[in-house]
Formats: sequence, structure tokens, C-alpha cells
Amino acid sequence: MNFSVRYELYRAFFERALTEACEGMRLRPPILAESMKYSLLSGGKRIRPVLFLSALDALGADYAKETPLAVAIECIHTYSLIHDDLPAMDNDDYRRGRLSNHKMFGEGNAILAGDGLLSYAFDLLLKEASRGERHLKAAQELSAAAGVAGMVAGQSADLCATASGDAETLAFIHANKTGRMIAAPLVMAGILAGRQAEELRAFGEKLGLLFQITDDLLDAHGADGKGNEEGKLTAVSLFGLESAERLADDLAAECADILKRMEFDAAFLQGVVGLVRGRNS
Amino acid sequence: MNFSVRYELYRAFFERALTEACEGMRLRPPILAESMKYSLLSGGKRIRPVLFLSALDALGADYAKETPLAVAIECIHTYSLIHDDLPAMDNDDYRRGRLSNHKMFGEGNAILAGDGLLSYAFDLLLKEASRGERHLKAAQELSAAAGVAGMVAGQSADLCATASGDAETLAFIHANKTGRMIAAPLVMAGILAGRQAEELRAFGEKLGLLFQITDDLLDAHGADGKGNEEGKLTAVSLFGLESAERLADDLAAECADILKRMEFDAAFLQGVVGLVRGRNS
Repeated sequence: MNFSVRYELYRAFFERALTEACEGMRLRPPILAESMKYSLLSGGKRIRPVLFLSALDALGADYAKETPLAVAIECIHTYSLIHDDLPAMDNDDYRRGRLSNHKMFGEGNAILAGDGLLSYAFDLLLKEASRGERHLKAAQELSAAAGVAGMVAGQSADLCATASGDAETLAFIHANKTGRMIAAPLVMAGILAGRQAEELRAFGEKLGLLFQITDDLLDAHGADGKGNEEGKLTAVSLFGLESAERLADDLAAECADILKRMEFDAAFLQGVVGLVRGRNS
Repeated sequence: MNFSVRYELYRAFFERALTEACEGMRLRPPILAESMKYSLLSGGKRIRPVLFLSALDALGADYAKETPLAVAIECIHTYSLIHDDLPAMDNDDYRRGRLSNHKMFGEGNAILAGDGLLSYAFDLLLKEASRGERHLKAAQELSAAAGVAGMVAGQSADLCATASGDAETLAFIHANKTGRMIAAPLVMAGILAGRQAEELRAFGEKLGLLFQITDDLLDAHGADGKGNEEGKLTAVSLFGLESAERLADDLAAECADILKRMEFDAAFLQGVVGLVRGRNS
């Protein structure tokens, strides 16, 4: 099956599961659920849940049984976007062509929408954890990736960083702010299937780096409509456009090398590498 | 043993456990751990962990083995204070006589300190969950109390509320914003000890209500140094000072009634009721 068609199948499957989860969210006051759903259901490529579901599929596991974990992954990603867009953080008025959460609902509600999504994700994780040792370990993996030794640390380092930061700082930000939450869905799939978790982690870390460098390149080209990221430490500000492009090519090649050594059919994951690398072409 | 001495023993025991947990937090960048610890180690009565540890003790469980859950409880409470103090929420410059987190570290870092503490709490919960069914259930209880059908919902309702709100709205805010996180430690103790969890929930809900109404009375008297809460929906704005005082007395009496029917020695918990009711005297 064509890569794009398969991607769309996983994405649409996830979208249905997410919509169902949202329909079950009858919260009081209504604005709490509204603000959470506004950002959750704003589309996007859903790359993290697609990585999770497709890796489970490739490993021979029944991915349809793991939709709560997929929803939890996307909830944590979405909370991080809402808080990251706040005026005190990246101060973005728009996200995916729509008003950002705080522009739509006000800052207070946006902070709570983020808190709510993170809390809701952990409700799901603790419920899934009762299914047994592998689910508990997968939940712990996601928690570690999202937390103070993962994504939150990356966000914090990004907030502290200036354009004059060094390559080591940038690597830390990329690995933690973006990399951990790209790698975690793959590692979780490996844990649930009982194999290849560490190989998938190695692949996920490279893919996460590739994802973030491509993001920096997109920003530099102004292709995301957000304009440039002047004054920020990025792969482009540090290495220049040409070197950043070369770095991205090298990472894509390293991803392909790791995938070649996998014990399962990694054709779909190779397609994702192409998708990520090709975003600015 | 005198109630105050016993309270101080539990509190000091917890304080040591919390300090140890903080010493283990070697995070990068340093400001992330600093900002988390600044609010975590700012003193206070530690009423939630003390309720948890003392209830375990009263039920005959070994409370010294449950310090990670006690730390998780306080981390979640602390994250909620940091986010609640933000300009977009309650806009408080001071907390317990010190600068609030965002006044000390800036809004961006304060948002991340809150996110970090919530994430860290769930790292602890998912680790404890691996100890068995009771620990998993206790972790789920705390997650539910803190989340979108608990504390976050209460915060959201509080943010929406105006001084012209009705008694039902106020009851919802009190029960969720404060009550759930006062009741949860008691319910968790019951779950871990394998008895009296629902009786402890009934008691905790009343105690939480008493706690919040006493808080409203403190605010009205200006005794917390924050001045009045003009324009906010509180027990005092809704019922007037005298009725609110009477309501508090009634709740304290109901708490005592529930405790009399407990199958364990509830003298310490009765002391806590007196402590909470007596805060403004």
C-alpha cells in the first residue's frame, strides 16, 4: 500500500478515537472541555500517535487496543503547545492557522486547558497501567519523556537560551523539547510488543532531531507563516542554512541505517523519515 | 501525646522526606529545579501529607513506606498554587509571606515549574503503582482528585465565577478546588490500608469544605495579609460573615460525628478538625 494512504489510515483511525474520547469529556464548567477540545481537535499530522500505532502494527501488536495510550500521547503534546504559545513563553497568536488557545479563551483558561490535558493524559495512563506490567512500563516511559528530565526540561532550557548559545545547549533543547516526545511513542510500542524497544529509541531520537532541525529550517524559510525566529537559538542561527540542511540529510540517512537493521518491516517508518525530511521541499 | 506535638512529628517527618526528594532533583537547566524547590520548600502546614501519613498511622499501616505518595500529594498541591498565583489567574504577588513563584522567576519559568511539579508527581505515582493493586488504586484516586473532574474543574469554575454566583456554583468550586485534594490523601490512606476508604472520603469532603469556608473567613477578616477578596464568589460574599461562621461550626460538628463512627482511633483527625476550624481565632 502507498505510504500516504497508509499514513492517512492510521491518522484517520486515531482521529476517530480522539473524537470519541472528546465526546466522553462532559466537564464542568463547559469552557474547560471547550478549551481542551479546541486545541486537541485542531488537526495536524498527528505524527506522534501515528508513530505509536504504526510501530505497534509493524511489530505485530493489535494497535486498535491501544487507543487510550495514543490519546494520552496527543494530549501531552497538545498541553505543551498551549503552554508554549502563552505570552510568557513563545507568545504565539496563531497555531496551525487558527487563534492560539489563550487568544481564543484568555490566558487563565489556556493555562487550565493545558493543566487539564496533562492531568487527563495521566488519568488515562494510570487506567492503562492496570492492564499489566507492559502497559505500566509504557506509561512510565511517556511520563519520563514528558517530565522534568524530558520535555519540561527542554522547554525550560529553550526559555533560558539566547541566540548566542552553543551547540551543546542546542542539542540538549532539541533532544528534550522535541526528541523525547517523538521517541517515546516508538519506545512504548516496543515495550508493549515486547521487542526492539531500545532500537526504536535510537531511531526515535534521531527522528526527533531531524524533526526539530527541519522545523528550524521551516522557520528560517518562513514557510510556516510565523516569520523568522530572530534572537532564538536554532540549528539555522548556529550553523547557517546550508549546514543545517546538510545536518538534516545526514540525520535522515542515519535514520534509514537504523531502520535497515530492524527485525520487522520498517518500510512505513522509512516513509515517515521521508515525510519529515521533505516538509520544507 | 499532645495533638500539636504529634502534628509536628508528622510534619517534620514529611519535611525531611520532601527535602530528600528535592536533593535528588538535579535538573537541567538549574532554574527549573530552583523554581520548583522554591515553592515546594516554602513551609506551610503540610496539611495534605499530614492527613495522609496520620490516617495511615491510625489505620495501622506503616506510613514510613509511603513517603513518595506523600511527596506526590504536596507536589500537586504546590503546582496548583503556582499556577493559581499567576497574573492571568488570581494574580497574587505573595504566597506565605514570600514572593510568589512568577514574581521570583518570571511567568514563563513559573508556568514550567508548575508543569514540572505535576509531571514529577506523576512520575512518582507511576513508580509507586508498580508496587501492586492498592498503590495503583491510590495513585488513580489522586489523579482523579487533581484532574479535570476534580481540582482543575474547580479552578476553572472559580475563574469563571462572579460575585453574583449562586450557592450551587460555590459548592461546586469548594468541593472541587479545595475539597478533592483534602479528601484524596485520606481516601488514599484507606485504600492502602484496605479499609474505611469511603468513610474517610465522607469525612475528607466535609473537612475540605470546612477548610475552604475558613479560608473565605480568613480572607474576609484580612487575616492572611492578602486583603479582601472583593468581587469574588466566596462563602462570605454569598451568606455574610455570621452565616459563614455558623456554617463552619456546623461542618466541624458533622466532621466530629463522622469521626465518632470510625473503626480506628480518630483522635488525631479530630485534632485536625479543631486546627482547621480554629485558624481564624
